[in-house]
Amino acid sequence: MADQAVADFGLIGLAVMGQNLILNVADHGFTVCAYNRTTAKVDRFLENEAKGKSIVGAHSIQEFCAKLKRPRRIMLLVMAGKPVDDFIESLLPFLEKGDIIIDGGNSHYPDSNRRTQYLNTKGISFVGSGVSGGEEGARYGPSLMPGGNEDAWPHIKDIFQSIAAKSDGEACCDWVGDEGAGHYVKMVHNGIEYGDMQLICEAYDMLKRGLGLSSKEIGDVFNKWNTGVLDSFLIEITRDILYYNDTDGTALVEKILDKAGQKGTGKWTAINALDLGMPVTLIGEAVFSRCLSALKDERGRASSILSGPTPKFDGDKQAFIDDLEQALYASKIISYAQGFMLIQNAAKEYKWKLNKPSIALMWRGGCIIRSVFLKDITNAYRNNPDLENLLFDEFFKNAINNAQAGWRNVVSKTALWGIPAPAFATALSFYDGYRSQNLPANLLQAQRDYFGAHTFRIKPENASETFPEGKDIHVNWTGRGGDVSASTYIA
Amino acid sequence: MADQAVADFGLIGLAVMGQNLILNVADHGFTVCAYNRTTAKVDRFLENEAKGKSIVGAHSIQEFCAKLKRPRRIMLLVMAGKPVDDFIESLLPFLEKGDIIIDGGNSHYPDSNRRTQYLNTKGISFVGSGVSGGEEGARYGPSLMPGGNEDAWPHIKDIFQSIAAKSDGEACCDWVGDEGAGHYVKMVHNGIEYGDMQLICEAYDMLKRGLGLSSKEIGDVFNKWNTGVLDSFLIEITRDILYYNDTDGTALVEKILDKAGQKGTGKWTAINALDLGMPVTLIGEAVFSRCLSALKDERGRASSILSGPTPKFDGDKQAFIDDLEQALYASKIISYAQGFMLIQNAAKEYKWKLNKPSIALMWRGGCIIRSVFLKDITNAYRNNPDLENLLFDEFFKNAINNAQAGWRNVVSKTALWGIPAPAFATALSFYDGYRSQNLPANLLQAQRDYFGAHTFRIKPENASETFPEGKDIHVNWTGRGGDVSASTYIA
Repeated sequence: MADQAVADFGLIGLAVMGQNLILNVADHGFTVCAYNRTTAKVDRFLENEAKGKSIVGAHSIQEFCAKLKRPRRIMLLVMAGKPVDDFIESLLPFLEKGDIIIDGGNSHYPDSNRRTQYLNTKGISFVGSGVSGGEEGARYGPSLMPGGNEDAWPHIKDIFQSIAAKSDGEACCDWVGDEGAGHYVKMVHNGIEYGDMQLICEAYDMLKRGLGLSSKEIGDVFNKWNTGVLDSFLIEITRDILYYNDTDGTALVEKILDKAGQKGTGKWTAINALDLGMPVTLIGEAVFSRCLSALKDERGRASSILSGPTPKFDGDKQAFIDDLEQALYASKIISYAQGFMLIQNAAKEYKWKLNKPSIALMWRGGCIIRSVFLKDITNAYRNNPDLENLLFDEFFKNAINNAQAGWRNVVSKTALWGIPAPAFATALSFYDGYRSQNLPANLLQAQRDYFGAHTFRIKPENASETFPEGKDIHVNWTGRGGDVSASTYIA
Repeated sequence: MADQAVADFGLIGLAVMGQNLILNVADHGFTVCAYNRTTAKVDRFLENEAKGKSIVGAHSIQEFCAKLKRPRRIMLLVMAGKPVDDFIESLLPFLEKGDIIIDGGNSHYPDSNRRTQYLNTKGISFVGSGVSGGEEGARYGPSLMPGGNEDAWPHIKDIFQSIAAKSDGEACCDWVGDEGAGHYVKMVHNGIEYGDMQLICEAYDMLKRGLGLSSKEIGDVFNKWNTGVLDSFLIEITRDILYYNDTDGTALVEKILDKAGQKGTGKWTAINALDLGMPVTLIGEAVFSRCLSALKDERGRASSILSGPTPKFDGDKQAFIDDLEQALYASKIISYAQGFMLIQNAAKEYKWKLNKPSIALMWRGGCIIRSVFLKDITNAYRNNPDLENLLFDEFFKNAINNAQAGWRNVVSKTALWGIPAPAFATALSFYDGYRSQNLPANLLQAQRDYFGAHTFRIKPENASETFPEGKDIHVNWTGRGGDVSASTYIA
């Protein structure tokens, strides 16, 4: 007997995320068809978590496709890379024009660009969707960031927005943009996640090594911070982690090996920033900090060879903790400002229509970086969609200004105490550089012209006949050398 | 009449670098054949700079190849990218097995990997050589960094080592390694160059905005520094630049637009560091600083919206200048330590035999980063070729230790004064992180396990039956959630 098309949605890939998303979709009144390459997982799922819910299974791609209503809405939650392309190829023979394939894995956005174009030639609508929120998010309300072939949106909007996290009643899911825009925004989300986590780790280090607080006391600090401007998922779980004791009554986190793992998306963000020429310094430092932590054994040897100060804090602990809260807040603002600078620039470069208020809303709930802070960002971009930089918004401008004294105090202390705080420091350097009308790059340009004849331009206010505005000028700095300028293509 | 094979060496590409290299080779007793796609340049060169020297010209690729003795030694100094491949293709019909093509442009090392392999299949030996020292270096003594098909080395060693810069009588040129190793080392050289220049610019900014010194006074500082541990080409030219006045008697450098240009090699180094997972933070910040400087107009707007402290220096100026010298020195040591960490790691990853003392020697003279400092690095690696890190060498360990107080003072002041010093700050953060037996990445691993089940490992000293050493452990941090771990492939 032929399979009946009973399912509204199909999902391939029954690891944690896949199972949880299926359950989430079913909870919202849709019938879902589940498939996995190792079909035993399908059976196990149907007999356990999926039992009694509006979920059916399939044991072949053909059966899977037969069970889906038209236009078919198929989501892949498989490992990024070749597996995605392989599944697309195995699905194609059983699909029809107008069917929709959604890649919900952590794919690199150029691959989503490619897949959108490729599947378009086959009459299939491809959607590359970022998914954030981990296991729990997938189950109860993820942040979803779909982009690709916009023809698909009307057909998946209902499912996506109903299963997504809600923030003040709004779904944390909207159409991001063309081609790989959804995965691009997920990539930047992950980069910002690296930055948020790095800042929290540096703050924890300052409380531990600088102020000598116990894990419980540090947990109390994060507990308090979670009621203020730093109210967020990451601050909350940090508190939980610091309170979590091993069976011997000591904090488990202190027994964990300090070698950070990474899956690569933070690195992609940093590389993209370098390629686009945008100074996303905090994410850069966050990625590099993970690299440094990975050199665990070498650091062990270094610690017995290299010396530095022993932090000695004498002063008002609570005042310093308050300063640290401000420093963390200000550095976070800088990180998000850099992230949105990158997104803005990518939109221009790749010719995507990226909706900044929507992006902030998609990050507001469901995802790892969710926080009240993102509500303020959403408001900033709703108030002024053409906002050039988050720092120019009244709210954030004032927040940073109020935080300055504490921020500067904390950063200067880390330098004196010998506690590494690369993310805090680079955030402050960026702020001071960004607000500088004049940076010392005039000297840099002079040096490049001196040794390589790379030419410089004159400041408009200093233009003259000898040094006209807008012209590439070479000067014979030494009285030796020739007149030939090096070619000045910008890489 | 058939062309006579009279030339020992052939060079294609008559821009600045090409012309100057030809003159340099001819000065050392070799006969050179010059060719350029626009042949008018050949004639102009022969009638002017090349007149009376052992230099001949060619007006076609065929004539060029006919005039070269066997094995032909052909150097390309053309724009990187497609032009190099195009010239290779146009040369091939006129070459014979054992002939040598040397690419002396700023090619990206993967292209040199490819070209070495490709030309090997044709029986041609390819050499990818870094060339540094600008116009003047090319003319009188460049640093040369050749790598590729080692069969070529005995045939080009005489020319290369005679025209190269000399340092204490040693040629700043040696065989670097396989395939693209020469261009790789040139890339890292350029990255380090970005770092050195960024540090100098930050120091200049501190003297200007922090201490209120005039250009002449700052020039005096650099003049003094050039007699000490910072004695180098870049410090010297910085002095010259600061002393160079416009016709109205004011320093020209102050009229130069502070928008840094870049040709991309610094960016390549930063991207390679991210790919290899090596924390080359100073070069990263140097590249990002150039990106920030390029946002000139936006910074102008920011300067009228965002506020910060006005630096107010009251104290012993000379003492601060001495501290600044130490800070610059220590930060420079960190940058080079990071650069050599990258090189060491690349050698392992790409399976190249890279000779660290030789690399330091090649950079000792002729190139943009030449300095007495590189003599100390050369010695460090000669004393111990297996030196794990430059910072473990007695000389550098002590130098950093002596510099610490001044370094920390300077970095803490920049945070308080509001003068951006990202390179100084990241160097110090790296030092403090690198010498930390324990970094706060334990918390990061706990967070990743909490929200993504990414697992952590236990510290060996805390291993137990519940938490065995070397195992990937997942903990149910909340009492909710399941047992399934996310897949942990390292990207």
